[in-house]
Amino acid sequence: MQLPSSLLENAVNEFTRLPGIGRKTALRLVLHLLKKDVSEVNQFSEVIAKMRSGIKFCQRCHNISDADICAICSNSMRNQQLVCVVENIRDVIAIESTQQFNGVYHVLGGIISPLDGVGPDQLQIESLVERVEKDGIEEMMFALNPNIQGDTTIYYIQKRIAHLNCHVTTISRGIAFGGELEYADEHTLARSIANRLPVKHYVQ
Amino acid sequence: MQLPSSLLENAVNEFTRLPGIGRKTALRLVLHLLKKDVSEVNQFSEVIAKMRSGIKFCQRCHNISDADICAICSNSMRNQQLVCVVENIRDVIAIESTQQFNGVYHVLGGIISPLDGVGPDQLQIESLVERVEKDGIEEMMFALNPNIQGDTTIYYIQKRIAHLNCHVTTISRGIAFGGELEYADEHTLARSIANRLPVKHYVQ
Repeated sequence: MQLPSSLLENAVNEFTRLPGIGRKTALRLVLHLLKKDVSEVNQFSEVIAKMRSGIKFCQRCHNISDADICAICSNSMRNQQLVCVVENIRDVIAIESTQQFNGVYHVLGGIISPLDGVGPDQLQIESLVERVEKDGIEEMMFALNPNIQGDTTIYYIQKRIAHLNCHVTTISRGIAFGGELEYADEHTLARSIANRLPVKHYVQ
Repeated sequence: MQLPSSLLENAVNEFTRLPGIGRKTALRLVLHLLKKDVSEVNQFSEVIAKMRSGIKFCQRCHNISDADICAICSNSMRNQQLVCVVENIRDVIAIESTQQFNGVYHVLGGIISPLDGVGPDQLQIESLVERVEKDGIEEMMFALNPNIQGDTTIYYIQKRIAHLNCHVTTISRGIAFGGELEYADEHTLARSIANRLPVKHYVQ
């Protein structure tokens, strides 16, 4: 697909570097911007650049923040002794949107995955251990994706804080709400049987 | 979905204004940019802004161009007496990628559609008629989408140039290559029967 202008070509190439955007979609987006006023496109471009250069990460939990300490960490109404450990910022947003969690977070910035060359040193694990030591955290709740890497990460961190008096939990795994038993994979089904709950504990 | 930073929120809002990009996709794109270096994101932003402010439209055919007259119009190897009339720039790109057309283009910038409030005056029809009058165009080939608006536009332009000695054609409509007869709608099938071709004219 040859484009009639090098400016257009460059813009399309920039868009194709975004995840899930191919050349045809990129062209559609660029031609859409081309129909807008110059001022509108300048605003689009400025907001993106400002976002990248201006955004901060919370010094405590490494979540995205406008200030040095994020709104969640500085909220005294939240339980600062309950820390939910997640892989990335998207997970924080997903959990926050349930409105069911009243603790604080710790964003690891990834997950231990030797095959991808990610070891504990590249993640925010040291600062998590420090938080447990200094802030007297009572419960650490893991909300990592249910796979080998997630389990490895949980195992590693648990070992690191074993000498400290911190209760370690993980979000429950099992059949998804609205899912059907017969279509669940055997691994999930096996786990949800092994980790069965007394009905009186079952929250609807 | 509440976001932890107003800078992030603004960037996500800008992306959701693009066609086909919802809030979740926008967030994915923004978080992807957030992982990139500041310089890379600045480049992204600059290329987009530069594209909008720097791009020109060919004064003859209204296609996108880096110069006043586009590369197609100024190419003396192409048949300047054969003009393909299209709705927008995407159609030019689609036809160019077939490498089957050796004439030049005229981009209307839309299509006559009274329901959407688009009349002939908002389109580049006057300049098309002028081209036929002044440049002595021999054939005008319409490549508009096969719908009522497309047919209305063809009918209107044809009336406007009826007094001039210009052969008017339209790209053929029928069963798509690789399509199946039984799944074709009756309108398309009826047209392709009415406009049947002698087999010796049939280009494979």
